[in-house]
Amino acid sequence: MKNNKIAKLLICCRDRKGIVAKVSNFLFKNGANIIQSDQYTTDYQNGHFFMRIEFDQTNLSISKQIFEKKFSLIAENLEIKWSLYEGKKKKRMAIFVSKEGHCLFDLLWRWKSGELDVDIPVIISNHNDLKLLAEDFNITYHHFNISKENKEDQEKEILKHLYNIDFIVLARYMQILSAKFINHYPSKIINIHHSFLPAFAGAKPYEKAYQRGVKLIGATAHYATTNLDEGPIIEQDVLRVTHKDNPSDLKHKGQDIEKAVLAKAVKWHLEDRIIVHNNKTIVFS
Amino acid sequence: MKNNKIAKLLICCRDRKGIVAKVSNFLFKNGANIIQSDQYTTDYQNGHFFMRIEFDQTNLSISKQIFEKKFSLIAENLEIKWSLYEGKKKKRMAIFVSKEGHCLFDLLWRWKSGELDVDIPVIISNHNDLKLLAEDFNITYHHFNISKENKEDQEKEILKHLYNIDFIVLARYMQILSAKFINHYPSKIINIHHSFLPAFAGAKPYEKAYQRGVKLIGATAHYATTNLDEGPIIEQDVLRVTHKDNPSDLKHKGQDIEKAVLAKAVKWHLEDRIIVHNNKTIVFS
Amino acid sequence: MKNNKIAKLLICCRDRKGIVAKVSNFLFKNGANIIQSDQYTTDYQNGHFFMRIEFDQTNLSISKQIFEKKFSLIAENLEIKWSLYEGKKKKRMAIFVSKEGHCLFDLLWRWKSGELDVDIPVIISNHNDLKLLAEDFNITYHHFNISKENKEDQEKEILKHLYNIDFIVLARYMQILSAKFINHYPSKIINIHHSFLPAFAGAKPYEKAYQRGVKLIGATAHYATTNLDEGPIIEQDVLRVTHKDNPSDLKHKGQDIEKAVLAKAVKWHLEDRIIVHNNKTIVFS
Amino acid sequence: MKNNKIAKLLICCRDRKGIVAKVSNFLFKNGANIIQSDQYTTDYQNGHFFMRIEFDQTNLSISKQIFEKKFSLIAENLEIKWSLYEGKKKKRMAIFVSKEGHCLFDLLWRWKSGELDVDIPVIISNHNDLKLLAEDFNITYHHFNISKENKEDQEKEILKHLYNIDFIVLARYMQILSAKFINHYPSKIINIHHSFLPAFAGAKPYEKAYQRGVKLIGATAHYATTNLDEGPIIEQDVLRVTHKDNPSDLKHKGQDIEKAVLAKAVKWHLEDRIIVHNNKTIVFS
Repeated sequence: MKNNKIAKLLICCRDRKGIVAKVSNFLFKNGANIIQSDQYTTDYQNGHFFMRIEFDQTNLSISKQIFEKKFSLIAENLEIKWSLYEGKKKKRMAIFVSKEGHCLFDLLWRWKSGELDVDIPVIISNHNDLKLLAEDFNITYHHFNISKENKEDQEKEILKHLYNIDFIVLARYMQILSAKFINHYPSKIINIHHSFLPAFAGAKPYEKAYQRGVKLIGATAHYATTNLDEGPIIEQDVLRVTHKDNPSDLKHKGQDIEKAVLAKAVKWHLEDRIIVHNNKTIVFS
Repeated sequence: MKNNKIAKLLICCRDRKGIVAKVSNFLFKNGANIIQSDQYTTDYQNGHFFMRIEFDQTNLSISKQIFEKKFSLIAENLEIKWSLYEGKKKKRMAIFVSKEGHCLFDLLWRWKSGELDVDIPVIISNHNDLKLLAEDFNITYHHFNISKENKEDQEKEILKHLYNIDFIVLARYMQILSAKFINHYPSKIINIHHSFLPAFAGAKPYEKAYQRGVKLIGATAHYATTNLDEGPIIEQDVLRVTHKDNPSDLKHKGQDIEKAVLAKAVKWHLEDRIIVHNNKTIVFS
Repeated sequence: MKNNKIAKLLICCRDRKGIVAKVSNFLFKNGANIIQSDQYTTDYQNGHFFMRIEFDQTNLSISKQIFEKKFSLIAENLEIKWSLYEGKKKKRMAIFVSKEGHCLFDLLWRWKSGELDVDIPVIISNHNDLKLLAEDFNITYHHFNISKENKEDQEKEILKHLYNIDFIVLARYMQILSAKFINHYPSKIINIHHSFLPAFAGAKPYEKAYQRGVKLIGATAHYATTNLDEGPIIEQDVLRVTHKDNPSDLKHKGQDIEKAVLAKAVKWHLEDRIIVHNNKTIVFS
Repeated sequence: MKNNKIAKLLICCRDRKGIVAKVSNFLFKNGANIIQSDQYTTDYQNGHFFMRIEFDQTNLSISKQIFEKKFSLIAENLEIKWSLYEGKKKKRMAIFVSKEGHCLFDLLWRWKSGELDVDIPVIISNHNDLKLLAEDFNITYHHFNISKENKEDQEKEILKHLYNIDFIVLARYMQILSAKFINHYPSKIINIHHSFLPAFAGAKPYEKAYQRGVKLIGATAHYATTNLDEGPIIEQDVLRVTHKDNPSDLKHKGQDIEKAVLAKAVKWHLEDRIIVHNNKTIVFS
C-alpha cells in the first residue's frame, strides 16, 4: 500500500493512564481509520510510552491544519511529543559515498525496483569513482575534494546541494562529518558501519576483527551523532566466518550484511518506524 | 512482572472502524491501565483484525463478572471473538514424552529456574525411561502401554489424569493421538516436530533430511490438529549442517533447536501471545 | 589469489588405505606445492572417499600431459574418479533469466566488482525485460519466445549460443528445461529455487509458504536434474518472517536470500569446491 | 565412533613443500588408516601450516613409543610442533561454577546423554547453590569461599583437587583466576563470556548491551589467558533482541546461546579439533 492515503502518527511521552484511549478516540471521531498500531512502554509504572499509528486519512472529516491544531491540545494535556507524517509526497534522500560502490549499488537497485519508495535527488562523494554508476541511474553526482583544511568550507558547499533533502544516507562514506554538519540533521543521517558495534568502532574494523580472531563479523546501521560510531543503533546483523578468512575475505563477505542492514534501516526510516529515545531506537517493524 | 496484577485481553473480528477506540475506552473508563497493546490487521479494507492487550487490573473499578458482562455487549456489537486471561493462577501443563529426554529435561529446567511460570502436575509416557527424571523434579509420572489395539482405551485412561489441565505439550511423544483426543484440546496441544515443516512431515525426519542432502535442518512447534504435522505453526528454527553430518549427527545437533523452539512456543502460549486463525498463528511476541 | 598458478585436483573413490599418501606423494615428487587439501569419508570402514587439493603448479617438473598420464595410472590402480582444473583460463558462464532482475543484477555486480572471477558471454531469456540491464554491462542478450509447442526447437537454438559455455546459471528462469537439454549439462546447471527445498517445490513457493503460515522462508541453490527441484542441493538459507508478511512481502524479503544463496553456489562452483555424489553435494568451502 | 581406536595427530609448522606427503606416508607405512584429514595454511608462500589427522590405530605396526620416536625425527626435520592424542582414555574435565546453573546443567545433561564423551571428576564453586545439582549427577562438589585476601591460598587448595584433570571449564564462574593459576593450564581453561567479544568485556555485559541499545546479544567461548576476556576465541553466536527486552530479558534469552556456544567449544576441545596460534584458534570442525 504505497499510496498517499496512509498517514503515520508517532508519539512519545511519560506513561500515564488513558493515552491509548484518548488518542484512538481522537482519530476515530475525526474519521481516521487505524490500520496498524504499535505501542511500547519501558516500564508501566514509571516509564516512557511510545506509540506508532498508521491510519487511512481518506475519510478524515477535518483538514490537516485543524487535525494538527486539535491534536496539539490533547498532546499538550498529556505532555506528548509527536510527529505526523502525511505521506503525501515521497521523502528525499541524499546518498554520500566514497570509493566503494556495493551499498550505493544495492540502494539504487532497491530504489529502481520499487522496494524503496523514495526520491534520490543527489549523490555526494569525495571521489569520482562512482560517478558513472550514478549516471547510469540518472542521479546528479557532486564531487568534492575534502581535506582537513577545507572540510568546513566544503561542508558548507555540500549543504547548498541538500536544501530540500529529508535525510542522508552515508553508504560507506569514509569521511567524518563535522559536529556542525551533523547537528543540522538530528536523527536524519543514517550511517552503515562495517562491524558489530560497539566492537571495532573507528577505522579498519575488518582488519581488527581478523586480528582478534572473531568467529562472526557484523554490520551496524545507526543514526550519526557527534560521537563517532556511538549514535543510536537501528539495525545489526552478523555473518559466520572461520580461521580461513583473511581480512580481504572478511571485507568481501561483510559487504553482503552491510547492504542488507543498511537497506533495512533506510526502509524503516522511510516508513517512519523508528523513534529515537536516550540514544537508543524503538523500531516498530 | 510475573504477578497476578496483569490480565490479557485477546480480540479477533472483521476489521471495521473504531475498534481500538472503543476497546481502549472501555478499559480506561473501568480503571484498567494498558501496559502493552499489539494489533494486526490482515488487510485494512476487508480483512481480519486481531488485538492483544495487557493491562494492570489493580485499580479496576468493577468486578470481573461485571467487566465480562459489559465487555460482552461491546463485543456483540462489533462481532468480536474475545478471551480474557486474568492471570490470577498459573496455567497447568501436562507433558507427554516417549523415550527421548532432551525436551523434557529442558522444559523442567526452565520451569525450575523460574523461566516458565507454570504448574506441571503430570507427565504421561508410553515408556518408563524418563520416570526417574520426573521423580528428580518431584512430578507425577504415569506410564501407559500403548498399542494399536488399546489406544482408544488408554487415551480414556490418560484423560482421567488430565481433568484439571489447561494445555498439553508433546515433548517428543512418538505416538499419534486419536482425533477424538485431539478434539478435546483445540489449540491446546503443542507438538514439537523435528523438521522444518512442511518438509519431512511424518516419521524419521532426520533420516529423510540426510537422504535429501539439505544444508539446514529444522524444528517446528505447532498446535496439534487431526491432520498430522499440519496444525498451525507457532515457531520454527533451523541449524546449519554439512555433508559431514550423518543421520546420528543431525539427530544430536537437532536436539538443540527442538528444545529452543519448543520452549519459545510454550512460553508464548503461557503468556497468551498466540491467536489461531485459519490454521495459522498470529504471535504477538 | 586469483591467478593462473593454482590448480585443483578433485578425487572420488571407494575408501581404502593409503590414498592420501599416494596422491600427496605424487604431487610432491612432481613439484606441486599443496596449498589447501580437504578430505571427507562417508564411513571409514566401507565408505566413499572424497578429496580436493589446491596446489601451486608454478614449479611442476612435468607437463600437464605427462601429469595427467602419470596420475591416470595411480587413479586406475586405486579406482579413483578424478578431475583436474588447471585454472589457466576463466570459466564461461551463461545466465538464463525471465522477468525478475534481482539475481541477475546481483551476479553482474559481483562479477563487475571482481568477486566472481568468470566470463559471462551471454544472457538468455524468454522475455525482453532485462535486455537493457544486460546492455548496461555490455553482455550479449538473446531473447527467445518459448511456448509448449516450440520449446524443443527453441532449446536447440539456445544451445547454438552456448557452444563454448562451461556452465549455466538459472537466475530465476521461470521455464522448465527439457530433459534433453539438462542432460547436456550434468552438474553444470545451477538453479535457484525460492523456497527451502524440499518444502514448496514447484510453482509459487511464496504463496504456498504464506498459506502454510511458516515462520521462516528459504532459498535453495541446486544442480538441475531432470526431476524438477530434486537435484543435488548446493546451498540453502532462510529468513525470519511473521504473520504480518503477506505473499508480496515474502517475495520481496526472499529476494535477499535468493541472491546470497545463488552467489555462494556460483562462487563454489567457480572455485571447483563441489563434488556431486548420490544426488547430494560435498562442498569443500 | 566413540571408541579407543581413533587417534588424532595435530601439527603446526612453517609452511614448506612436502609436509602432507611426508606425514601421510609415515602414517601409511606404519599401518595407520587416515579417516579424516584437515589442513590450513595462513599464506602458502610464507605462512604457517596446520593439520589435523584422525586415524584408525587398530592395525598400527609399531608401538606408541616407537611411533612417537620415529615421528619425532620427521618433525624435527620439518620443524613441526605436534601433539598425538591416542584417545584410549576419556579426558577429565573440571567444571567451575558460581551461582547460576544453566551452563552447568546443560553440560551435565549432554554428558549424561552421551553427547560429551568425558569424565567429570569434580565441580568447584565459590558458592553452595549448585551443590544439590551436582549431587543429583553424583559428581563431587567442592565449595571454596573466595575473597581478595584468601584467593591465592584458596587457588592452591583448589589445585589439589585438580591433580588428574586434563582441562577446566568455567561455566559462568564469576571469579577472576590469578595469572599463576591460569598459567598452569595454557589453552586448557575454556571460559564462556556472556557477550559478543570484544564488545562488552568485563563485568555486567547484559546491562552494558541494554544501555548501548544493541539489536543482537552474543556469547563467546574462549581459552582463558591472563588478559581478561582477551584469550583466543573458540566459538561465538548471537541472538536477536529488540527494544522491548530489558536487562533481565537479555540475561534470560542469552542463557540459551551461552549454553550452546560453550557446549560446542567443549565438544571441539574434547575431540582435539582446536589449535591455538597467535592468540587465535584454528578450529577443524
